[in-house]
Formats: sequence, C-alpha cells, structure tokens
Amino acid sequence: MYREELHISTEHEMQMVDITDMVEEVVRRSGIKEGIVNIFVPGSTGAITTIEYEPGLLHDLPAALERVAPSQAYYKHEERWHDGNGRSHVKASIIGPEITVPFENGRLMLGTWQQIVFIECDVRARKRKIIVTVMG
Amino acid sequence: MYREELHISTEHEMQMVDITDMVEEVVRRSGIKEGIVNIFVPGSTGAITTIEYEPGLLHDLPAALERVAPSQAYYKHEERWHDGNGRSHVKASIIGPEITVPFENGRLMLGTWQQIVFIECDVRARKRKIIVTVMG
Amino acid sequence: MYREELHISTEHEMQMVDITDMVEEVVRRSGIKEGIVNIFVPGSTGAITTIEYEPGLLHDLPAALERVAPSQAYYKHEERWHDGNGRSHVKASIIGPEITVPFENGRLMLGTWQQIVFIECDVRARKRKIIVTVMG
Repeated sequence: MYREELHISTEHEMQMVDITDMVEEVVRRSGIKEGIVNIFVPGSTGAITTIEYEPGLLHDLPAALERVAPSQAYYKHEERWHDGNGRSHVKASIIGPEITVPFENGRLMLGTWQQIVFIECDVRARKRKIIVTVMG
Repeated sequence: MYREELHISTEHEMQMVDITDMVEEVVRRSGIKEGIVNIFVPGSTGAITTIEYEPGLLHDLPAALERVAPSQAYYKHEERWHDGNGRSHVKASIIGPEITVPFENGRLMLGTWQQIVFIECDVRARKRKIIVTVMG
Repeated sequence: MYREELHISTEHEMQMVDITDMVEEVVRRSGIKEGIVNIFVPGSTGAITTIEYEPGLLHDLPAALERVAPSQAYYKHEERWHDGNGRSHVKASIIGPEITVPFENGRLMLGTWQQIVFIECDVRARKRKIIVTVMG
C-alpha cells in the first residue's frame, strides 16, 4: 500500500480538473506494478469520475446536472449555512466522491479517451486535497 | 483483510442513515492502521454515498432525485412485482450500492462536513445489512 | 491479486448486459476466497452499476437517464466529433465506470435481486472490454 495527497486549486463552479497524469505519477512513485488505485476527495462539494476531457463535455455534463439540481431551485440547505451551495452538495452526492481504477505495469488501464477528473461542485474557488491510495 | 456486517432498520422512503461512526468502529476493530474500506449494500433499492448530514440536505437530495425518477411516472417494473418501487430501483442504480474510503491511523479520511450515508430508496420500512470490508 | 479481462458485444444504445456470472467465474478462477472485486470499463461511454435485471427496469433506468441527458438536447461535444453521442458521455460519467463488490467463499455478496450490469451508453454497437481485478 502506498499513499499520497494531491493538492489542486479550482476557480469556478463546475470546473473540471484533469488529474489523470497526477494519479499516474503517484502510481509510478509507489513502485507497485499491478493493482488498483483509489482516488477520493475529502469534502462534500467535490466529486470524482471519468470523462473524455474535451471542451464540449466540460459544458455538457454541468448542463445535465443543472437539470437535476437547478440553480434557481430552493434548497433547504440554505437555512443552515446561507452560502448558496445546496445544489453543490446534491450534485456531489450523486456523482460520488471517489473512483477506483486498475493499473498494470504502472499504467492506469483507462480508455484512450477517458480521463480522471475532479469536479468542483462548490460555488466558489477552493483549494482541494485529493487522497490517492495505491493497493497491489 | 477484515470484514463485518452492519445491521440497520429504516422507516421510510428516502431516509438517510449516517453510518460513519459504525464504519469507523469496524476499521478500529480490524486493527488495520492504513488502507481502504469498502462499504457495500446487498440489495437493489438501497444506495451508499457521502453527504453533509444536516436536515436541509436530507430534503434536498431526495427532491433532486424526484426530478430524475418522479413518483408519478409510470415504471414498467410495476408489471413484474406490483410493489410501486420502480423509482426506488432507478435511484439506487444511479447513486450506486457502494463507496470505498481511505483511512489512516484507524481514522476515516473524510472531510469535516462529510458523512457516509445509507439511502433507503425503497418505498417501505426495511431491515438492511451493509457489508464493510477493510483492506490494508 | 488476480486479473482477467471480459469481452462482450453490445448491439444498441442503453443496452444493459448482466455480467454477474462472468465476474463470479473470475473470482472462482482467482482461487482467492475472501476480498473485494473491482469491475472497471475502460472507455468514456460505458458504465457499470448494479440493478435488478428484469425487463421493466431495462426500460425504466434509460427513461430516467433520458430526463437528465435528453436525446433532443444540444451537446457541445458534437462540435468535436460529430458522432451524436454527447448524451452517452454525460450518462456514463454520472453512473460511473466502475463498481467494487465484496465476496466470501468465492461468492459475490450481492442481494438476491441484484445483478452487476454493463450499460452501453454509446449510440451504436460496440465491442467492450471490462477489467476485473480480484483483491484479497
């Protein structure tokens, strides 16, 4: 088992950050050749998934999540914190905070057009920690 | 590897149960210091994710899932079982039945406002088993 | 650790393939008795989850995802590839490309009415590889 933390900064709501290379670097540094790697965000307004990282989808996925958790809807979460990010929590819980990916010879076994992304669901710029755990 | 089963009871549709402390207790009893823990619900109308466990979001997440799988929609699942829980299956498959969380020194590496929840998607009270597998 | 690749063919958009038996066969061939198994699809238009595999839900889950990513919506992804599958990427990223399931005595610890499915989110027939990693 080997673990590292990644640190990234986000600038705006629904920004997606391609963290594939950073995760693969952790796998290489681990020295473990075969296994699985878990990528987890501590925090309830961030999410992890995979996507083809190209500009069109960086617009399309947020547009779809807006249908599920519209900006203009009323969120009871507002009554607690008054920070306008009820929709952020909802989206993050639906996408989920983690993904587990297999690797072989130190390389992630992703598809050619498949990248690992962190999605900033919160409504403001954030500094984010992501925990990468390599098991093999 | 260490495994325990959690047993909980739910009372109503879209009830969310904070199972964070129960999971952390299993991790402590395992004696394993560093690793990952997988939390899995056997059953196709329950789901596992993380959320900030506060009363507002316990309303907001179900409201969002109602947009995806409305109570008033017709479900072909009804033709098989006539138990009115087509929407339950749909929500559970979208959220997913499991989550994998890293831990360190026997503590889950969650965010301060992030809890692990079981979501009862079924339309009636249920007794639920949740399988917690500690790897390290 | 033990790994195998599954190979399946899909014929149409939103086809769901029950891969439970194939995954359990890999677990048996691994010779590992207790642990977790990760099922991962390389590719950004396929998804993995669990569902009760019966004809009604094979219609109901796609109907719900159509609410999130409608066929008739405009997708900016179209500007890159002109292949009409923007909705496919969106659905696959929301469901996610992997699931991790516990097993015991070589048997998956699923519910009675819970199967592991590959969901073909793409708009055409595809040949698909699925990576099954057994850890224990």
